[in-house]
Amino acid sequence: MPKKSFPLSEVYGLLEPGPVIMVTTAGSGRPNIMTMSWHTMIEFEPPLVACVISNHNYSFGLLEASKECVLNIPSVEIAEKVVGCGNTSGANVDKFERFHLTPIPAALVRAPLIEECFANLECRVVDTAMVTKYGMFVVEVIKAWIDPTVKNPRTIHHLGNGNFMIAGEKIKLKSNMK
Amino acid sequence: MPKKSFPLSEVYGLLEPGPVIMVTTAGSGRPNIMTMSWHTMIEFEPPLVACVISNHNYSFGLLEASKECVLNIPSVEIAEKVVGCGNTSGANVDKFERFHLTPIPAALVRAPLIEECFANLECRVVDTAMVTKYGMFVVEVIKAWIDPTVKNPRTIHHLGNGNFMIAGEKIKLKSNMK
Repeated sequence: MPKKSFPLSEVYGLLEPGPVIMVTTAGSGRPNIMTMSWHTMIEFEPPLVACVISNHNYSFGLLEASKECVLNIPSVEIAEKVVGCGNTSGANVDKFERFHLTPIPAALVRAPLIEECFANLECRVVDTAMVTKYGMFVVEVIKAWIDPTVKNPRTIHHLGNGNFMIAGEKIKLKSNMK
Repeated sequence: MPKKSFPLSEVYGLLEPGPVIMVTTAGSGRPNIMTMSWHTMIEFEPPLVACVISNHNYSFGLLEASKECVLNIPSVEIAEKVVGCGNTSGANVDKFERFHLTPIPAALVRAPLIEECFANLECRVVDTAMVTKYGMFVVEVIKAWIDPTVKNPRTIHHLGNGNFMIAGEKIKLKSNMK
């Protein structure tokens, strides 16, 4: 099933619950994948996301140079691959090949989408003022994709030391919050 | 059951999964409670957390003036109260009274802990450089408390428009990530 374009105004609903995500970047060499849990929405629309990436990660240099990335949201079906990407470095591993993940071309950025993720957010870096101090890149989501067949994605949420929580049941409450 | 002191080095495991939290602040008037989903860890230890709070919120002024807050983590048992706090403003409502939440004194800050939350993180604001642009306060957790009887808290995670995901099952994977 090909992915469908997803409204930028609804992107916050994908990231606010705090899933582990996979950041793809591309540069002069092969594209890379990094597993990341330290992110937050900072604006609804255009959607801005703060992403914290240590300069010990291979992706740090790729993101700094290219100013582009894709935030790919996996569900529990590929949890082993997500952790595998977190345990290895793009400095010496082609993670797409190693973990049998499929890169597909993005519409607006050079970094590839990961086909096996149910949502993919193409981003441009818009603010690097907090990079030196905190490794925090502010990125703007400029194009979003979703797998329309996935209704209740069982996202994974990092608890530390190899423990993950899987998204459980949904409830609806009378909230005025966006 | 009284709460137990919780190691600062393990605080990230409470916030990384992305729960909705309740921020308490105090100032010259009554203390306030604000419901918040836009936060991320930015450092393990001392634990630093970036919190995004719009200046439309009554808590914004209290936090800016007092430079202190408590991040309280609720579970689904009090979801209605969490949403109630999100639907009202401290400008005209005493939320502790309205929602039958119990303020208990913190050890190191003036803002109270919410007794009904299973974890409470006492914080000091350490960086306001991103407040004007993004409403982002960087806070340091200086004291953490946990209810030792709560083993698998069913935290709530905001999906937007009144929809929430409740923390589901846990899995353990062979991760080298902290």
